[in-house]
Amino acid sequence: MDTPVINVAVFGAAGRMGRQVCDAVQRADGMRVVARIDVDDDPKAALAAGASVAVDFTNPDVVLANLEFCVGNGIHAVVGTSGFTPDRVARVQGWLAEHPSTGVLVAPNFSLGAVLMMKFAAQAAPLFESVEIIELHHPDKADAPSGTAQRTAELVAEARARAGSAAFPDATAHDADHHRGGTVQGVPVHSVRLCGLVAHQEVLLGAPGETLTIRHDSLDRVSFMPGVVLGVRRVAQHPGLTVGLEHYLDEHE
Amino acid sequence: MDTPVINVAVFGAAGRMGRQVCDAVQRADGMRVVARIDVDDDPKAALAAGASVAVDFTNPDVVLANLEFCVGNGIHAVVGTSGFTPDRVARVQGWLAEHPSTGVLVAPNFSLGAVLMMKFAAQAAPLFESVEIIELHHPDKADAPSGTAQRTAELVAEARARAGSAAFPDATAHDADHHRGGTVQGVPVHSVRLCGLVAHQEVLLGAPGETLTIRHDSLDRVSFMPGVVLGVRRVAQHPGLTVGLEHYLDEHE
Amino acid sequence: MDTPVINVAVFGAAGRMGRQVCDAVQRADGMRVVARIDVDDDPKAALAAGASVAVDFTNPDVVLANLEFCVGNGIHAVVGTSGFTPDRVARVQGWLAEHPSTGVLVAPNFSLGAVLMMKFAAQAAPLFESVEIIELHHPDKADAPSGTAQRTAELVAEARARAGSAAFPDATAHDADHHRGGTVQGVPVHSVRLCGLVAHQEVLLGAPGETLTIRHDSLDRVSFMPGVVLGVRRVAQHPGLTVGLEHYLDEHE
Amino acid sequence: MDTPVINVAVFGAAGRMGRQVCDAVQRADGMRVVARIDVDDDPKAALAAGASVAVDFTNPDVVLANLEFCVGNGIHAVVGTSGFTPDRVARVQGWLAEHPSTGVLVAPNFSLGAVLMMKFAAQAAPLFESVEIIELHHPDKADAPSGTAQRTAELVAEARARAGSAAFPDATAHDADHHRGGTVQGVPVHSVRLCGLVAHQEVLLGAPGETLTIRHDSLDRVSFMPGVVLGVRRVAQHPGLTVGLEHYLDEHE
Repeated sequence: MDTPVINVAVFGAAGRMGRQVCDAVQRADGMRVVARIDVDDDPKAALAAGASVAVDFTNPDVVLANLEFCVGNGIHAVVGTSGFTPDRVARVQGWLAEHPSTGVLVAPNFSLGAVLMMKFAAQAAPLFESVEIIELHHPDKADAPSGTAQRTAELVAEARARAGSAAFPDATAHDADHHRGGTVQGVPVHSVRLCGLVAHQEVLLGAPGETLTIRHDSLDRVSFMPGVVLGVRRVAQHPGLTVGLEHYLDEHE
Repeated sequence: MDTPVINVAVFGAAGRMGRQVCDAVQRADGMRVVARIDVDDDPKAALAAGASVAVDFTNPDVVLANLEFCVGNGIHAVVGTSGFTPDRVARVQGWLAEHPSTGVLVAPNFSLGAVLMMKFAAQAAPLFESVEIIELHHPDKADAPSGTAQRTAELVAEARARAGSAAFPDATAHDADHHRGGTVQGVPVHSVRLCGLVAHQEVLLGAPGETLTIRHDSLDRVSFMPGVVLGVRRVAQHPGLTVGLEHYLDEHE
Repeated sequence: MDTPVINVAVFGAAGRMGRQVCDAVQRADGMRVVARIDVDDDPKAALAAGASVAVDFTNPDVVLANLEFCVGNGIHAVVGTSGFTPDRVARVQGWLAEHPSTGVLVAPNFSLGAVLMMKFAAQAAPLFESVEIIELHHPDKADAPSGTAQRTAELVAEARARAGSAAFPDATAHDADHHRGGTVQGVPVHSVRLCGLVAHQEVLLGAPGETLTIRHDSLDRVSFMPGVVLGVRRVAQHPGLTVGLEHYLDEHE
Repeated sequence: MDTPVINVAVFGAAGRMGRQVCDAVQRADGMRVVARIDVDDDPKAALAAGASVAVDFTNPDVVLANLEFCVGNGIHAVVGTSGFTPDRVARVQGWLAEHPSTGVLVAPNFSLGAVLMMKFAAQAAPLFESVEIIELHHPDKADAPSGTAQRTAELVAEARARAGSAAFPDATAHDADHHRGGTVQGVPVHSVRLCGLVAHQEVLLGAPGETLTIRHDSLDRVSFMPGVVLGVRRVAQHPGLTVGLEHYLDEHE
């Protein structure tokens, strides 16, 4: 049986990620790039070229306009741009409510390694007494914690809440200078910024007498491409908004 | 509704593991120790005391006789003793064939952390191009590799075979002194023996641009107790032979 | 040539550390325990027993009185008790000024591994652009950061100041919840508290294209004993106050 | 006082390392590239251009001819090319015997991080009961173990021999498939080959109750450049053959 080829528009096609996305989509079976849209180009080019799926690696300033256009025209979207606050998520959901058959995937991380780390962390979290997250990045990063660490902590907190897990033990009485770091929904997240690093994260889980550590090291954006291609391939079967590539992974495991 | 209390016989009750098992069973809800059987005691004491489940942390020389007695008398068994070669497994299966409602759990590792490490490694293995295992133990250990590493490698190999994964890339052309170590079903396993260590294992998974590492550190046998208690609680619902605690974990996740 | 045996008084002899110190001193060549002094005992017993060196693993409430007594009577002291603020250090130095031939060693950590970690971190610090410290302990610990992490950060900061090193690069612009943690003399120190851990520390050093990580894992207080014995053996040759076992290490390397 | 500029010839100037060396030398104070010599060029170009120092990142087939030419003409040489067997070292020493004021630095690794790892490992080795090395590289590497691991093991073995250290404890009785890996001068070295990795090494040191781990991660050849520039600057002050950049480091620490 012939599967029709998926026509893909790439927003931010001239950026570092965009160029790799174009290459990866061209090389993947069953899909092709029909529009490369950059900062000064008109988003309508995606429609004119017959794209059924758009990939967006742009920036927080323009991604919402791109998404409004795509959803309004029934183009599914795979989005790697950061900055999706609850407000922004709500706006996207509003647009999708009027186009219920269109799918949007917003993923803080397209690396399969990172997605598995998050999934495993959530599965293991209720079986351990303690969970902490350390994320380590190059010192040019503006945000602490990273989006992946934020998301991991949320998944851990949700899994523990569902299981009725107790609060983490912590006898800290003196910590005047915040060495214990910050928390995300109660889960401690430590942010390290070090020259020579790229993007790394450790999830530490502890119980009496043992610890389980899940670590992801991302050295090159090329690691995102299998996840982007997977997103393009499956976004049409997931109408509405999906946050996190992990929801696309379940089907083939 | 009242669940009847599970009566437990502990073989090897005076050993280091056996004493901890007795404590853990006594402390757990819904079970109690009714027989503590040591090296010179008669296994029949288990029967006389009305045990429905036996826990065996003895040694390879006596475990088979204990198991033959238990299976022959319809006592379910949870076994942490090592040395279960295919021959020995076949003998246990032979006894169970005649007592099909009796359950035997043989687990190379009762730590939930170790079991999750194995399960996650098997799930992730088909999504990466390379997998290697490093196990690290105190220098008094007689066997290389460890039972847990052996089992992890088997699970990784089986998962990759099912998924039709390619062979691992490896351009090694010069390795006169076996620095690449040994393999278990094609999966490289490296054994480190270091003063100051207890029992540790890392599973390294690699794809272009990223690696995922799952590490388990076991510092104290107390980490085995939640797994032993789980085994005692569930063995009666798993007639026949089960190898590996992971098969008992699936039901509550 | 005969070296006279060193007579040792152990303050806190009934505590967990004290008992191990007694054992280690008794087993070491050229020294013996002559007084075991506990919470209700009179410190004068050290003098009466002819001790030339005292070892103190007590608590911040009594250690100063013990030290004043020892220094006042010319007994050298090896101190593992915590809580030596600059104020307290100044008081000890005041007593020593009147007894200039007496030696006092105050060490936040007697493990040779920890001491080497600190020494190596200080040596390497000026050759890298970034340095951060992660210390990881069991969740019963009251202080963050640990004394060892505090001391490591100070040594790193001093080495960089001497070398005229630049400030660490860090573009963090958004960190509302202190995920970047606290600093000690400008060096970031992150404190993790996790069930299943004992006492661990990592020093991460980064330069373009590479990182160097020095990690110490301490699983058992037995690791302190070689350092305590070394301190007892050498304290008499180091009159005045010495803070940190590293100053005793240089001579034999 | 004016220090004369160092004139540098780069052999293998068109290779990946060679191009970076040219850039780094041009950017460094007090030195400049006067000859870029590639595979088909005549080595005499170095002499004609007035080079006082040559840098060689070529391959084992041509490096010896380059070195014979340089030493014969009084040009100091900084060599990163691999393959220096004892035979080859002896030949270089033979040429240097006739030109005793000429310096040659052969370094298996120019990364300061790697050199410090080796130096620290050698310093710490006599203070621990166990030492093992794990080196981890991309799967395109032909040799196991790596040159850096080989050199680290030699330095560890020499330091322990000088200190009269005991043999490593190891109770391994069953290891039919070489899981314990190979040894270099008695020091176990394990070689991991994993997609997604670049060049990494861990030195594990263990004593009762504690371990010290020194890990180096090299992600980009740019990390070699500070070491190459240091070599160029100092080679003239080190007549004869020097193997290992660590011997150049001592002077400023």
